Amino acid sequence: MSTTGITAPAGFTAAALTAGIKPSGNPDMAVVVNNGPEFNAAAVFTRNRVVASPVKLSRKAIEDGQIHAVIFNAGNANACNGSQGDKDAAETQQRIADLLGVQPTDVGVCSTGLIGELLPMDKIRAGVDKLVPALGDNGSAAAEAIMTTDLVKKETLVKGAGWTLGGMGKGVGMMSPSLATMLVCLTTDASATPEMLDTALRAASKVTFDTLDIDGSTSTNDTVFLLASGASGVTPSQEELNAAVLEASEDIARQMQADAEGVTKRVVVTVEGTSTDEQALNAARTLARDNLFKCAMFGSDPNWGRVLAAVGMADADMDPDHISVYFNDQPVCIDTTGAPGAREVDLSGPDIDVLVNLGVEGPGRATVRTTDLSHDYVHINSAYSS
Amino acid sequence: MSTTGITAPAGFTAAALTAGIKPSGNPDMAVVVNNGPEFNAAAVFTRNRVVASPVKLSRKAIEDGQIHAVIFNAGNANACNGSQGDKDAAETQQRIADLLGVQPTDVGVCSTGLIGELLPMDKIRAGVDKLVPALGDNGSAAAEAIMTTDLVKKETLVKGAGWTLGGMGKGVGMMSPSLATMLVCLTTDASATPEMLDTALRAASKVTFDTLDIDGSTSTNDTVFLLASGASGVTPSQEELNAAVLEASEDIARQMQADAEGVTKRVVVTVEGTSTDEQALNAARTLARDNLFKCAMFGSDPNWGRVLAAVGMADADMDPDHISVYFNDQPVCIDTTGAPGAREVDLSGPDIDVLVNLGVEGPGRATVRTTDLSHDYVHINSAYSS
Repeated sequence: MSTTGITAPAGFTAAALTAGIKPSGNPDMAVVVNNGPEFNAAAVFTRNRVVASPVKLSRKAIEDGQIHAVIFNAGNANACNGSQGDKDAAETQQRIADLLGVQPTDVGVCSTGLIGELLPMDKIRAGVDKLVPALGDNGSAAAEAIMTTDLVKKETLVKGAGWTLGGMGKGVGMMSPSLATMLVCLTTDASATPEMLDTALRAASKVTFDTLDIDGSTSTNDTVFLLASGASGVTPSQEELNAAVLEASEDIARQMQADAEGVTKRVVVTVEGTSTDEQALNAARTLARDNLFKCAMFGSDPNWGRVLAAVGMADADMDPDHISVYFNDQPVCIDTTGAPGAREVDLSGPDIDVLVNLGVEGPGRATVRTTDLSHDYVHINSAYSS
Repeated sequence: MSTTGITAPAGFTAAALTAGIKPSGNPDMAVVVNNGPEFNAAAVFTRNRVVASPVKLSRKAIEDGQIHAVIFNAGNANACNGSQGDKDAAETQQRIADLLGVQPTDVGVCSTGLIGELLPMDKIRAGVDKLVPALGDNGSAAAEAIMTTDLVKKETLVKGAGWTLGGMGKGVGMMSPSLATMLVCLTTDASATPEMLDTALRAASKVTFDTLDIDGSTSTNDTVFLLASGASGVTPSQEELNAAVLEASEDIARQMQADAEGVTKRVVVTVEGTSTDEQALNAARTLARDNLFKCAMFGSDPNWGRVLAAVGMADADMDPDHISVYFNDQPVCIDTTGAPGAREVDLSGPDIDVLVNLGVEGPGRATVRTTDLSHDYVHINSAYSS
């Protein structure tokens, strides 16, 4: 059994193969199957109002809290393809369901890749047919097959008392860039109701995937599944489940941040000194999305003036004369005025922590993980229909 | 008399010189003086809540609708410098007022450059003293002295019936990047009340400077002044004044867009098919700020999927199944589905028009001018405290 990933927990098998969707010839289809005895599940999806055909199907599939399998393809998002896209996603779902002997509505569907190209259904059909006989302890192969612009595959494993929770993910943004959609599948052999799973997944997503913000762009295809087989026979408490799902989500989110398109710096932005957590999150996101700030981070430049200029536009309570900024715990701006030595702070390392206090008495606090804006980000995302 | 710029209208003189604030040794101080007989004026300022010391002074100065002169420096924003910053701005204002024999509150003050460095007051004082004897037909020299990362100076002239309106500007954003603050000064020899000037300036700014969005970043120092000398003896109608101020503002805004940091493409985004102009503006801004879209424009890539992914996140009424996109008047997406030949649309030229119809019956329509996101943008903005 795998030591990490989606097939490490008992009750799960997976398969992956090259169907020929990616021009690179790399693996591009995968399936994860829950072999039971339980089939409880939860999922969260993109908040974009333009959603891909597979997201529409997966949203319906999760309604009853039961999922037997999730099928993935990379290299084509099957988004903005009209009714033909809906038909192609449904045919894929029906075909794998028939082969597994389950209902189509028991199968989740995830796609990632270019928007606006029809799925090559001949390749998809052939791929589906070959996936089922190949099912086994292939979590790592599945993690590799769902990659797009990812440079490394992303897997995790969290151990509970007598149960485990594994996972895989791909992508590089806040439910995220259009050609680097975030897809995550978490699996556990714990026994848990759909409600428990939903509670744990929503709580974890809120502080991990939802606060990972590479470029402010949100995909049409983002999906996170959590599947529970109950094969361990152990029922954790809600708190234990929450903790494991949070730990696994944090691990996958960190791996995404580290592999983000063109990243040279991992930047953690924390905002406090404002009225509510939501306001703190607004300000942290505003800063994390500010291109001038992100360029300064790329240049290892402790240019705190850009932090002030960015947060000054945020929808958050603040005292404009009493804002403080710290880079890697060193004060660079106190009461909206430069601190001694601010220009000499060394930001040459790969990790930069930014703490902003907006100067208002209040419990609001939030953290967003982002990256710098580099030459490579522009290069990766300006190549023709990359 | 100049054929363009701020000293082309009757009643205005200007001076510019090198005070030594810019490390480059280029000219970095300027003043424009209204010699009357009238001194009516209007101004608009940054919406950032963190504002520079000169903005605080200029806001007070414009309260009575009377401005005799505006003094400019480039190379230092005098922002986030605490009470010393306020004192330095006030001393500059007082010194030039004394030399001109006017009240300090008759002088506007504009600074642009690095945030968080104290003004070199010895250089400023010497500069002020030399400016006044040098006053003359020097509008172009003033336009050059206020440049920071601008590559070219920006001037305009609009002719009315017996009166003229001139202008200069610098900067490259939507009231705009922190080190490329937008400063504009418009001058006219028309006779117009402060109320007429205010009406004309606000109407023009709303559809020109306010909808120029290079990177979503908003400076602490953005300022637009409109000064009227009445020297022509002609009083235009409000409509004539509006038209002239709009034409001059459009001209300056276009020059800023063309000279934006690292620009290789001028991109005009228009959104329609939504309920209100405000919603259309939200969607146009969301698209204009989307880095993935901007990178695609840099790559001349007709990747309309990124347009859909971006507008799907906008706060605007839309029908997610009936969104249409046109690049340079060619349909690339109809009813949220790719149009034939969409991938072959030629975007290799320097100008790209993007029209998005959100598919809802409604009069909402708005246009935003932006640019691509290029290697040079990252380069310019990642150099140490550039």
